[in-house]
Amino acid sequence: MTEAQPARDGARAAGSASGRHRPRDHRSGAVADLRRIGIDPDFWYPVAVSASVPRSKTFAAVFAGHRIVLYRGGSGEVYALEDRCAHRQVPLSMGAVEGEVLRCCYHAWAYRGSGRISQIPYLPKGVDRPPRGVRAYPVREAYGLVFVFPGDPEKADAAALPELPEFDSAGYKTMAFSRTVRCHYSFMHENLLDMNHQFLHRGVLGKVQPTLLGYETGPRFVEARYLFTPAGGKKDRGAGLLSAEGLSGGRKPDVITVRTEYPYQTLQAVPEGAELPAFSLWAAYVPEDAEQRTNHAYGLLMIAKPPIPGALRLAWPFIRRFTERVFAEDRMAVEAEQRAWDEQGEDRNQEVFPLILDVREVLRANGVPLHPAPALSR
Amino acid sequence: MTEAQPARDGARAAGSASGRHRPRDHRSGAVADLRRIGIDPDFWYPVAVSASVPRSKTFAAVFAGHRIVLYRGGSGEVYALEDRCAHRQVPLSMGAVEGEVLRCCYHAWAYRGSGRISQIPYLPKGVDRPPRGVRAYPVREAYGLVFVFPGDPEKADAAALPELPEFDSAGYKTMAFSRTVRCHYSFMHENLLDMNHQFLHRGVLGKVQPTLLGYETGPRFVEARYLFTPAGGKKDRGAGLLSAEGLSGGRKPDVITVRTEYPYQTLQAVPEGAELPAFSLWAAYVPEDAEQRTNHAYGLLMIAKPPIPGALRLAWPFIRRFTERVFAEDRMAVEAEQRAWDEQGEDRNQEVFPLILDVREVLRANGVPLHPAPALSR
Amino acid sequence: MTEAQPARDGARAAGSASGRHRPRDHRSGAVADLRRIGIDPDFWYPVAVSASVPRSKTFAAVFAGHRIVLYRGGSGEVYALEDRCAHRQVPLSMGAVEGEVLRCCYHAWAYRGSGRISQIPYLPKGVDRPPRGVRAYPVREAYGLVFVFPGDPEKADAAALPELPEFDSAGYKTMAFSRTVRCHYSFMHENLLDMNHQFLHRGVLGKVQPTLLGYETGPRFVEARYLFTPAGGKKDRGAGLLSAEGLSGGRKPDVITVRTEYPYQTLQAVPEGAELPAFSLWAAYVPEDAEQRTNHAYGLLMIAKPPIPGALRLAWPFIRRFTERVFAEDRMAVEAEQRAWDEQGEDRNQEVFPLILDVREVLRANGVPLHPAPALSR
Repeated sequence: MTEAQPARDGARAAGSASGRHRPRDHRSGAVADLRRIGIDPDFWYPVAVSASVPRSKTFAAVFAGHRIVLYRGGSGEVYALEDRCAHRQVPLSMGAVEGEVLRCCYHAWAYRGSGRISQIPYLPKGVDRPPRGVRAYPVREAYGLVFVFPGDPEKADAAALPELPEFDSAGYKTMAFSRTVRCHYSFMHENLLDMNHQFLHRGVLGKVQPTLLGYETGPRFVEARYLFTPAGGKKDRGAGLLSAEGLSGGRKPDVITVRTEYPYQTLQAVPEGAELPAFSLWAAYVPEDAEQRTNHAYGLLMIAKPPIPGALRLAWPFIRRFTERVFAEDRMAVEAEQRAWDEQGEDRNQEVFPLILDVREVLRANGVPLHPAPALSR
Repeated sequence: MTEAQPARDGARAAGSASGRHRPRDHRSGAVADLRRIGIDPDFWYPVAVSASVPRSKTFAAVFAGHRIVLYRGGSGEVYALEDRCAHRQVPLSMGAVEGEVLRCCYHAWAYRGSGRISQIPYLPKGVDRPPRGVRAYPVREAYGLVFVFPGDPEKADAAALPELPEFDSAGYKTMAFSRTVRCHYSFMHENLLDMNHQFLHRGVLGKVQPTLLGYETGPRFVEARYLFTPAGGKKDRGAGLLSAEGLSGGRKPDVITVRTEYPYQTLQAVPEGAELPAFSLWAAYVPEDAEQRTNHAYGLLMIAKPPIPGALRLAWPFIRRFTERVFAEDRMAVEAEQRAWDEQGEDRNQEVFPLILDVREVLRANGVPLHPAPALSR
Repeated sequence: MTEAQPARDGARAAGSASGRHRPRDHRSGAVADLRRIGIDPDFWYPVAVSASVPRSKTFAAVFAGHRIVLYRGGSGEVYALEDRCAHRQVPLSMGAVEGEVLRCCYHAWAYRGSGRISQIPYLPKGVDRPPRGVRAYPVREAYGLVFVFPGDPEKADAAALPELPEFDSAGYKTMAFSRTVRCHYSFMHENLLDMNHQFLHRGVLGKVQPTLLGYETGPRFVEARYLFTPAGGKKDRGAGLLSAEGLSGGRKPDVITVRTEYPYQTLQAVPEGAELPAFSLWAAYVPEDAEQRTNHAYGLLMIAKPPIPGALRLAWPFIRRFTERVFAEDRMAVEAEQRAWDEQGEDRNQEVFPLILDVREVLRANGVPLHPAPALSR
């Protein structure tokens, strides 16, 4: 899906983010600290894997400090409400699903999927039912994930869900990831886009020489293309199996294309000379807490099926273990970055890689100010 | 003890709290947030069960952020002092009891039950003994509990201990409860008074239809009477056994009377047509931390002995398990309320039940402002 | 090493700290709270035992909120750098040692022991290497410890390492201690200097009667001499073994000399009539967090070898256990003091022992104001 684009090595492409508005600190005039920029809520964000919301059950989800209860009615439809009973603020996710209605566990107030109160069993005569119920979020299911639209509901219909043609393709099989990472979502984008961090994975990937082939920046995206050349060293078995070439025995260099297209991120690996990707990753980093210092990473890794029938099924557990190891190393690094920021109270990065400066600008320009919201936990 | 009183359905009784002074926020003129109101210290509060303070031992108790050491002298008398050595503030509860004296573990300063320093073993010549020792609290033992009077000691004698005639009656046997609940004490009062929360206990109590028969409000109390009608569903064995009718095989509706009489709370269950209660509960919710977001619930459940000798002894473990389950469910709910308050930073309840509005007013009007005291723990 | 000095009982010696400048609270004019005084960084402080830094390995150390990576190069030399990669602030202690160079785990930036960046493997053409690398600390190894100089590096050479002649003497064998204690370093000094706290150790030491023989105070030191007379009671086996007299069977009183010489502390035990100490302790209390409410205690206990060959080796585990027990009791007390301070928000001590008032003054006058630095952890 991300076509290789004309790009210039070591230089910013036309349409660079640098000319656009950059949020500035009102006191000093300095550029705002990226780690204090909230993600734009006017997009569809995954907040659960579908399997976590069985029929007639609830699931406690969260978006940037807003607690959201998901529940699946008897019809199979999923609803998303503010996870607070209008009565006494007890989480509705502790409640019981009755048909398409969700009933609070405490005094049994009942809500429709629209957030309207459908019943207060003991409402005294002469007392009016509270006019407002609870907030409802637009919700959609796709790719085995439950997406909500946490921003202005009026904009939900116009906003597109991500398009993942490989997900439905018979030529690919998808491995899903869902994991909390204790860092601002921006660290995730920078991690994946800067492929010079392969030293971090030297124990899993062996020695790899990444070469930047080019990159392009627009108001809402940065895309970089790298050539990955194996340079010796022991490689995890799953690393070899993950490449389609690996499954068929080859060991050619891959062209890796990483793209942040706000607010999502993708990565595609195309073996040199091939047309279709060996694998394709889509990822979203969804803030959990109000201060957005923790994100929930949802990933869909779509892997090309090799010509030999059943080979992918055999390789599956190895690929799973390999990706888990790589992810664990990345998590260790980005969580260390967040801890440093927490301790230093500000961003002291000295970035030298131009496309990373660009993606920081994209994330800054497309984000929103963080409201001083109450902390999620004590 | 709480006689059925004339009351009016759905309407406030004469002497309602609504006409009295309500603490208001000084900035906005709004009614003060109930969860920021401290409990009035000029009452007797239990801070330990007697069995926790054996002869010649200490016990670290607490009242609203004030650490209190209880110790029982060789004579059997219990003393209550500020739990800080006047010397270096080390807890006296880490110390050693010698006769009627308590000696700090560190430099062996010794205190009488009055809080006066009785010895500093190494006091240099020419150095005066510090004039003040530590604060002593009036203390009394009753009903298997140790009560202290944390307020103005001058008022202690005039303040009455609660009267629990059933405790000493040969017709009743008492089950004691002592448990920390992480919420403001007001949530406890609201929980018990609003019997419409039986949905919370549906797994233990089966289906119960509570009907409000009436309620009455005064400057220091709210009392509500409910009729509990079984409406089917499976019931925990202990629930049946707890009612005297249950022990003798009947299954009539109970009249449940719940009363907050500041600062305590009581509940009585009288089977329809009977004169004496099948059981009677007395409870106190004692703040632990300075911000009063945690309370220690002390309960005394006095259960009528059935005609068959020994039957209550056999039923005891079932009743214990049943009450533990009910209490665990209530705790889950009220702690969820406190967490919501912590996250929202204010009380967003939309209460619709008039007598709950009344009890909130009683707790507000009889409480005291919370001093911005240092937190108990880091 | 601390010779017995002429001193006056119960009176301050000439050169007392009382006449010197005392930091005062700028608002109230009151004496500054000792627990808010930072330790003077212009001294050599141990931050690791040498064995924790094997060849080609890193060690994450800390001084008063400043994270420091120690690493030992292939040559065996130890280096101390700021534990933050200049690039993205990831701890360098997560990195890899290559010869005398330390490479960050993330994007493989490499640093020399001087803190200069020696390589950025992928630095794009036309992009300058960041001018500053990371801070380097003067570092020295002695007595099995790694010392750094966290203050002004210009002053490092002029500052002397502590002198411990017994450490290298054939007549002594050294037992090392390294432990985190959650309190301000000042509580440690006061604990050891005030020997009236033997009541705390009554279970281990038996009854001991400490008598103050005299003390002396100077601008940078307080030294006190006590006579320790056994007064009955059961004694831990190790306690007897620790005294040289004990090892040879005697049970005479000891003269105990305790000296705070800023910022270190020493204790010597000389059996009555003997010339050489039975044992000698050197200790440093190194703040870990920026608020200096936690310190890392490093201790070197140099024990005289008894005439019987091998006796000390047999006694070693008993002495180890005995000192661990004493230390655990002291830690319980000083951590209780810190918790009290945390809760009370200020120092409410009522000290009656003059030499403790003096040592507080020495620590206050030689310390530095605490900068409002960011907390080490969330």
